[in-house]
Amino acid sequence: MKSETSTFQITPSERFAWVDLTDDLRRAIKDSGVTNGMAVAYCRHTTCALLINEWEDGAMSDFRQRLEAIVPDDIYYAHDDMERRTQNLQESHERQNGHAHVKLMLLGATSHSIPVAAGEPMFGRWQRLLLVELDEPKEREIVFHVFGE
Amino acid sequence: MKSETSTFQITPSERFAWVDLTDDLRRAIKDSGVTNGMAVAYCRHTTCALLINEWEDGAMSDFRQRLEAIVPDDIYYAHDDMERRTQNLQESHERQNGHAHVKLMLLGATSHSIPVAAGEPMFGRWQRLLLVELDEPKEREIVFHVFGE
Amino acid sequence: MKSETSTFQITPSERFAWVDLTDDLRRAIKDSGVTNGMAVAYCRHTTCALLINEWEDGAMSDFRQRLEAIVPDDIYYAHDDMERRTQNLQESHERQNGHAHVKLMLLGATSHSIPVAAGEPMFGRWQRLLLVELDEPKEREIVFHVFGE
Repeated sequence: MKSETSTFQITPSERFAWVDLTDDLRRAIKDSGVTNGMAVAYCRHTTCALLINEWEDGAMSDFRQRLEAIVPDDIYYAHDDMERRTQNLQESHERQNGHAHVKLMLLGATSHSIPVAAGEPMFGRWQRLLLVELDEPKEREIVFHVFGE
Repeated sequence: MKSETSTFQITPSERFAWVDLTDDLRRAIKDSGVTNGMAVAYCRHTTCALLINEWEDGAMSDFRQRLEAIVPDDIYYAHDDMERRTQNLQESHERQNGHAHVKLMLLGATSHSIPVAAGEPMFGRWQRLLLVELDEPKEREIVFHVFGE
Repeated sequence: MKSETSTFQITPSERFAWVDLTDDLRRAIKDSGVTNGMAVAYCRHTTCALLINEWEDGAMSDFRQRLEAIVPDDIYYAHDDMERRTQNLQESHERQNGHAHVKLMLLGATSHSIPVAAGEPMFGRWQRLLLVELDEPKEREIVFHVFGE
């Protein structure tokens, strides 16, 4: 059995930027030498999400529309209320990103487990591994853990 | 350590048809010979979901009501706008399934990881592994990856 | 390769109580002796969820507000309609928890897969493993499966 963990950084360009991580995952599987087993894709953040879906601009824009309708930016977020908040305060300045925390909690999309066969992730025809930035952009760290034979 | 991957096909009968995959998962675990370890259930599609919940007609119908309220069928989807769309077009005809892509992205429910003990998935009393079809029905492919001792 | 499964019980204090399971997961990893590999956190229930996000009272309260707006308590749930329901009925009394089933199905948050390095879960700076009770409180069972080298 082989077991390999790799980490890499990306910086999305703006809020609701999408990054296609499919080829990065493929490379991590190749580099691990695993031909049959599984891969975990893991996002180390609380305001951006990993999704498995189609890379098609329309569908990605439709998703944004709906998610922003369900979790609007312009309502009150206790997370952003500096009169009230006492926990986890940053010295410099605190981002107004309560909406992004709520979005990620609703999506619940921090990790995915993907079977691997013949050295490839067993994605269906239209599936891609996508990161979507829900907050103001900053450097993000993704972990791939691959194991098997 | 044993590691086994199996794939099977099902065709849901209609939109929002539910398929109980619990016994299929149990069989895949038995066939793998794994008694203690874990199982991954993976759906190779972008418009149907895997959920772990109770098989009860009322709850499944309640879920449909809410999901359709949050992601209505009868609004504009850029994914379905053939005047605008340029990517991933099919030769024959393109399904009007923008709503189903958005639904799955909100659910984020493409894979589940389930511990295995004594040759059984460690489901709680009411838990079942369910596939829910969000699109017009077609053949769907599910992968089970089981590994452990 | 080591592989270890542990189960423990908690009883949240009330509906929408949050329980921080991060230290329990850390302990399970230490006890397993695994230094590099992965961990699965699995919730054996159909009306409470596991989330990975920040422990900050404001963000948790914001999440509750939004989730209750999307899935209100005070609408009709077929799951709770004893005139209509025939499946899975309990002898004593049946909880009115249709809303909680729908909430968990929308969240899709029953399991998480978390890479492990140097004997620690690879959480980002603000990530914590959180259980959120969506139903009336009762004893809940969580499983951690850890494996690797």
